Amino acid sequence: MMADHETALARLNEELTRPPFHQVLRPRAVDVDIQKNMVTIALEYRDELARTPGEKTFHGGVIAAFADLAGHAAVAIKIGKMAPTIDLRIDYLRPVDASALTAVATLIQAGRSVARVDVEITDSRGRKIALSRGAYSTI
Amino acid sequence: MMADHETALARLNEELTRPPFHQVLRPRAVDVDIQKNMVTIALEYRDELARTPGEKTFHGGVIAAFADLAGHAAVAIKIGKMAPTIDLRIDYLRPVDASALTAVATLIQAGRSVARVDVEITDSRGRKIALSRGAYSTI
Amino acid sequence: MMADHETALARLNEELTRPPFHQVLRPRAVDVDIQKNMVTIALEYRDELARTPGEKTFHGGVIAAFADLAGHAAVAIKIGKMAPTIDLRIDYLRPVDASALTAVATLIQAGRSVARVDVEITDSRGRKIALSRGAYSTI
Amino acid sequence: MMADHETALARLNEELTRPPFHQVLRPRAVDVDIQKNMVTIALEYRDELARTPGEKTFHGGVIAAFADLAGHAAVAIKIGKMAPTIDLRIDYLRPVDASALTAVATLIQAGRSVARVDVEITDSRGRKIALSRGAYSTI
Repeated sequence: MMADHETALARLNEELTRPPFHQVLRPRAVDVDIQKNMVTIALEYRDELARTPGEKTFHGGVIAAFADLAGHAAVAIKIGKMAPTIDLRIDYLRPVDASALTAVATLIQAGRSVARVDVEITDSRGRKIALSRGAYSTI
Repeated sequence: MMADHETALARLNEELTRPPFHQVLRPRAVDVDIQKNMVTIALEYRDELARTPGEKTFHGGVIAAFADLAGHAAVAIKIGKMAPTIDLRIDYLRPVDASALTAVATLIQAGRSVARVDVEITDSRGRKIALSRGAYSTI
Repeated sequence: MMADHETALARLNEELTRPPFHQVLRPRAVDVDIQKNMVTIALEYRDELARTPGEKTFHGGVIAAFADLAGHAAVAIKIGKMAPTIDLRIDYLRPVDASALTAVATLIQAGRSVARVDVEITDSRGRKIALSRGAYSTI
Repeated sequence: MMADHETALARLNEELTRPPFHQVLRPRAVDVDIQKNMVTIALEYRDELARTPGEKTFHGGVIAAFADLAGHAAVAIKIGKMAPTIDLRIDYLRPVDASALTAVATLIQAGRSVARVDVEITDSRGRKIALSRGAYSTI
């Protein structure tokens, strides 16, 4: 049985608070679309996430971590448990200077042993900042 | 002229303190091998880097960020400047339960427009935890 | 000035015949959408492209080659020249048993030094067979 | 029980002749190192493998296919069966102009569900042409 939209969103936000490292990143789920297997997560800029002092430049490692956690969320919504990352590719499309990022993670495949997720990360103005594609172990 | 080993190591450690996000991660350069184009960086476990509360599990996003910054360091040592990441692949080989990680980053190619770096991340017992391979823009 | 649709399609098909290896694969451009930066290419099954004797299984290497050439086509339509592949990731979603494959290649970014292309490969029944994402050098 | 070196090499060469597409590529196993989990495979240039007419340029798709089959060989030598590719990354380091290529495939991990293989492809002069890293399903 699938939980409805509000319940799924609340549960995802609760799960996002659990990993201690997420208290550094503070991701916030803003939408869960169960039909489309999509999850939308926001990440607000804070100075400790920057690459360059005094500029709203999200560090490349922060973007990678954001892509990774969004991918996990898209798998978890579908299969109801955490699936370890097998591998992850991140493409950095442009440098960031933004007060927030949004990741839209779409589950491409949920197989018996492997799931795949695509993530698109955009900035406050809607420009594509980064893409990721990952394989996750669903066994 | 190449700086000697101690100078290169000291300079790398200074550069590693600059990005604000590195005050979260606190990476520490432990070796620079200019002949082999290799850089070795250590990352100590702290609770805020964990995936699971109460366990020395480095979050997958922390591992990705660690791979990314080690890759940057290997390029910077060679070309003397920061090269933006074009793309990065990370392979997660096993879950982590360790008090520290070590990344050895090897510059594979330093072309006029693209550099490539391989990173191997091991835990305190020398087991391979993750591998990464990245392309960096050297223009 | 952009060539119109028919001219672009004819030119692409002419270019696809040029590489000697394409006489093995025999790809055929079926659509060029200049507005959307998309190219659609078909690949008919022939026994010499198989992985398993007597089955319409396209070899994984054939799928990789197909993804690569479709990616090149999407870049070439935009920038008017061949751009060498920097790197390419291919995700194999399911085994193939089909009389033909279709690749839809979408140019995601055409920067001064790097282009990115996503390719989706489907079989005769419209099922996703493979995805690829590549970085190409546009210098 | 592990077959000895000559037997393993002969068996690999026999298996390499089986896929119909390999009659196009004609890969030839030249070494199997069971201790190091390494397989070495050669690929001779023939005109139908070229990208540019009249030049000994192996097509990028041929290089991708060569990397893929070398990866499969490294897994098969270890686990005794064919393991489907989950995903594959290929890095193209330089254009090729060579009468032959050599792929050295090293099994990095052979887990219960996933294997990983690194492949290094060099030309007749020993220069690195391409690298690949792949994940394979061992279930």
